[in-house]
Amino acid sequence: MSSPLLYACPETSADVLYFGRVSAPDPFIAFGVRGRKVAVVSALEFSRIRRDSAFDAVLPLELWAKRAQGEWPGHRAGVAEVIVLLAKKFRVARFSVPEDFPAGIFERLRRLGLRVAVADGPFFPERIVKTRAEANALREGNRCSALGIAAAERMLRSSRIRGGRLFHRGSPLTSERLRFAVDSACLAAGAAPGATIVAGGNQACDPHHRGSGPLRANDLIVIDVFPRVGATGYHGDMTRTFLRGRASQAQRALVAAVRAAQQAALGAVRAGVPGRDVHTKVTGIFSSLGFRTKRTARGSVGFFHGTGHGLGLDIHEAPRINGSADTPLPKGCVVTVEPGLYYPGLGGCRIEDVVQVTDGAPRMLSDFHYAWELR
Amino acid sequence: MSSPLLYACPETSADVLYFGRVSAPDPFIAFGVRGRKVAVVSALEFSRIRRDSAFDAVLPLELWAKRAQGEWPGHRAGVAEVIVLLAKKFRVARFSVPEDFPAGIFERLRRLGLRVAVADGPFFPERIVKTRAEANALREGNRCSALGIAAAERMLRSSRIRGGRLFHRGSPLTSERLRFAVDSACLAAGAAPGATIVAGGNQACDPHHRGSGPLRANDLIVIDVFPRVGATGYHGDMTRTFLRGRASQAQRALVAAVRAAQQAALGAVRAGVPGRDVHTKVTGIFSSLGFRTKRTARGSVGFFHGTGHGLGLDIHEAPRINGSADTPLPKGCVVTVEPGLYYPGLGGCRIEDVVQVTDGAPRMLSDFHYAWELR
Repeated sequence: MSSPLLYACPETSADVLYFGRVSAPDPFIAFGVRGRKVAVVSALEFSRIRRDSAFDAVLPLELWAKRAQGEWPGHRAGVAEVIVLLAKKFRVARFSVPEDFPAGIFERLRRLGLRVAVADGPFFPERIVKTRAEANALREGNRCSALGIAAAERMLRSSRIRGGRLFHRGSPLTSERLRFAVDSACLAAGAAPGATIVAGGNQACDPHHRGSGPLRANDLIVIDVFPRVGATGYHGDMTRTFLRGRASQAQRALVAAVRAAQQAALGAVRAGVPGRDVHTKVTGIFSSLGFRTKRTARGSVGFFHGTGHGLGLDIHEAPRINGSADTPLPKGCVVTVEPGLYYPGLGGCRIEDVVQVTDGAPRMLSDFHYAWELR
Repeated sequence: MSSPLLYACPETSADVLYFGRVSAPDPFIAFGVRGRKVAVVSALEFSRIRRDSAFDAVLPLELWAKRAQGEWPGHRAGVAEVIVLLAKKFRVARFSVPEDFPAGIFERLRRLGLRVAVADGPFFPERIVKTRAEANALREGNRCSALGIAAAERMLRSSRIRGGRLFHRGSPLTSERLRFAVDSACLAAGAAPGATIVAGGNQACDPHHRGSGPLRANDLIVIDVFPRVGATGYHGDMTRTFLRGRASQAQRALVAAVRAAQQAALGAVRAGVPGRDVHTKVTGIFSSLGFRTKRTARGSVGFFHGTGHGLGLDIHEAPRINGSADTPLPKGCVVTVEPGLYYPGLGGCRIEDVVQVTDGAPRMLSDFHYAWELR
């Protein structure tokens, strides 16, 4: 029986945030021992973490660092030396660490003779299945996403078309201006915006291009909004694709295919079904509708990303919904469902919602309409 | 001679962002070989990173993962197996990885027989000394911080006092509302707000308490703003402390002591001086003015954090200015100077600016006035 050990910053490590339920701007030592959770933090964080966290004991780092220095007077004692002292004090025979534990400390712990092993796969597998409170927090994240998308839609609707370009209140409507509207709406709702994507035309054919410059009429514009709720740390993750002006038949066929694929995927998401089977629904619909995926010298076209991913304290977490996801989706996990198609010249489209997996139809945790052609 | 190897996400690892000069929402493999920089990324990132990064070569992950799977058919080949194939292909005899390299991959690489060692200290020591372009990017970050602080000051000045509380446009002025004003100003200037602190009264006596609830007249309010500029990834980091109403003599003495300590520290910052000597100036002034630092059962009071830290792509990076920083500050590094005093009952005060170290007086990279009592 090994004790979990973390050395991470809650702003970037979902594991330590899940374990301690408190944020901090720097990494700190956290471990479990016989069901109790212990953190070792500096004076700067001490009283706040003692008051506002799930830790049962909070120890002062300065004191333990001083003890470690006394024990190893020859060199500068660091995090690893403190951990070795703690293992002795708390009678921990063996620690288990996550795959992303810092290699520098890992190696030093081994040199100091501590028994420590890297855990295979998710460190806290219980993070995959979301409680009711977690599902509600994810619903709140998606409420913030939807407010952002609604702000963008309003701005697009009220924009004017001149010479094929979009104008808003007299000046060109750019990806940057639209993104600011999205991000402000998220902020106002209490969520920190992520690297929001507002990409039109060929830019949107790179699914992770954030978008820049003037937006054009009659172009597909992908808006992907994944803020983090300040109060809980959980995320929203929704995407809608709009077009201001008049769509071509080819654009309508593209959007209809993506929406059909999304609906088929949503219909296939169910406890016990492997993510791969959901992904195959999407690729099957795209190929039956004649939308080819291929790798070219300048990149890929068609559908070349996964159908979805787990969503929680991390924006991308287990389980995955892609071509190699062969484990069954567990009941209660929360995933995105976000097929897309990307063809330079025609444009890109992605539609993304978030659901909780059940024994039947999945529970929608995101809510926004699918009207997209804004004449 | 070993080749640098990274496996990290640029949104959370400054090293890989510095190395490749491109952001991405997931970790990827990056390494250097004979002066060339190589990245291995999925189809989702391929064309964007090939176009918009400092990498000399970008390889498709899917292809290399397939090759690795062919080489190790017995089990699921992962990141480590791909790295071993790359080492063979690029004739790399030995890799060097940063201290925060993932232990899981590190251990697997060793088991696969690859020579890999953890580098001591900063992985790219050249990150510490900032070029002119980097100093300008940090100045831009602090321009965003200053816009945020100015927005807060305006809101405080235009607030009304009723029954000891602050009201703005008819409703209570809270930490949350003031933080939204700060964060909106940062966003509008093109920077992503960090976990902005707006904490009044006793809340501010926990230096990392973000602040919540109604703000009171005649209370010290600490406002610490550390956004990240979208275009460059560099940060601002400034703090001012305000009071709306009328300060007591004790509050005035507290603020004057912090400002005096900051000025003394700024006067001591110079190339070749150890950070500890700067920190000692601050502790010397505080104790000469009678401000005691002590640890109590419920936390610390007085001055119990470092005087400053390096600022760059990371919000906290080398060098440090604290009691154990014994290496000389190098010319060209950029540091915060942010003494503070915290006494529950009286309140907290911190004043923070950012400077670049020179052979003479440091070059200010932040600019905002120090008037604080808003009658």
